Amino acid sequence: MIDLLGAIAYGELTAFERLAEDAKLAPSLEDKVAMSAMATAEFTHLEGLLTRLVELGADPYAAMESFEKGFDEFHAHTRPADWYEGLIKAYVGDGLAADFYREIAAYLDAETRDLIVAALADAGHSTFVVERVRAGIVRDPRLGGRLALWGRRLMGEALTQAQRVAAERDALTALLAGGVDRPSLDLAALSRMFARLTENHAQRMSDLGLDS
Amino acid sequence: MIDLLGAIAYGELTAFERLAEDAKLAPSLEDKVAMSAMATAEFTHLEGLLTRLVELGADPYAAMESFEKGFDEFHAHTRPADWYEGLIKAYVGDGLAADFYREIAAYLDAETRDLIVAALADAGHSTFVVERVRAGIVRDPRLGGRLALWGRRLMGEALTQAQRVAAERDALTALLAGGVDRPSLDLAALSRMFARLTENHAQRMSDLGLDS
Repeated sequence: MIDLLGAIAYGELTAFERLAEDAKLAPSLEDKVAMSAMATAEFTHLEGLLTRLVELGADPYAAMESFEKGFDEFHAHTRPADWYEGLIKAYVGDGLAADFYREIAAYLDAETRDLIVAALADAGHSTFVVERVRAGIVRDPRLGGRLALWGRRLMGEALTQAQRVAAERDALTALLAGGVDRPSLDLAALSRMFARLTENHAQRMSDLGLDS
Repeated sequence: MIDLLGAIAYGELTAFERLAEDAKLAPSLEDKVAMSAMATAEFTHLEGLLTRLVELGADPYAAMESFEKGFDEFHAHTRPADWYEGLIKAYVGDGLAADFYREIAAYLDAETRDLIVAALADAGHSTFVVERVRAGIVRDPRLGGRLALWGRRLMGEALTQAQRVAAERDALTALLAGGVDRPSLDLAALSRMFARLTENHAQRMSDLGLDS
């Protein structure tokens, strides 16, 4: 559980960093403020997770450090080339991470689960992304093809890194394998989980007006 | 007044951007989180200012745009070379900006003045900066000399840009010159104001254990 909270916390910190960085690509001050607001929302979630980690007797920074490599590699491999790629990454990446953590949270105690679900709540910024991407595609229809490929790449990179992190971290593997006091996540359950993740991803791409 | 709120709002936005950027220089995750929290606090203040600008019937982004050049030049000329320079810039730059805006706010209506004072409230992050800088100087006494020079440079750049912005913006000049319904800021008052700014700056440098 400390591991999972540490992973989400580090994920939120890097999301904050990347959104603040990608806000530089904004074509207007209004867009820059909107993406900076998304960055700020991620950081606000992080603060609750750090408090909970301390309550659980953990060193929150040590808990986060184990996940630096996976997240940093994900971001290094998915640096947006322009504002639209940044928007898609914010929307698709955030949605995918939230889905994944929510799935895992189902295996945790109620208090931690509620905190995780709250930390992942969409602060209503996604309408802004959908609007901007759809307007961009109307102006330049070729953009849709490029962004559809970008969305697939984000999904692929996220799965690659998630798999690596899970393989490296015994605790996460143990969580998936179950224990005396909670159900295991068997192969069938795992494959259903991935089916749900892929379905939600396809839905998000379609909200943006993109093929998945 | 729209001008002043626009200037503060754009100042907060660039402060958010630079603090998020300078957090990359942090030597540890804990330090990175602390500086990212400072960035987030600046952004939170910005949101109140944007709401007030809309209430006043202004386009908040147009109000901010007039000040892009001054702030962007300030930041371009004061890019921290390392983590310590980033800490000093966060502390000294933020303090100086807050002092300056508070001085000007005294000439505005009560509601706007209260909003500005709230937007400039220190969220208690400065203890962290003082602690880190003092510990750094204990470890490497030569650091003190370099950072003292850096503090002077920050002060010089801030005054240069503030003067340029004031000269370019008639409304700010008019504010300083007074009007039928409020006192003018005559040369004597102006020189007393600069004396106070310089004194507070010296106090902040001394809090950090640095000569000003």
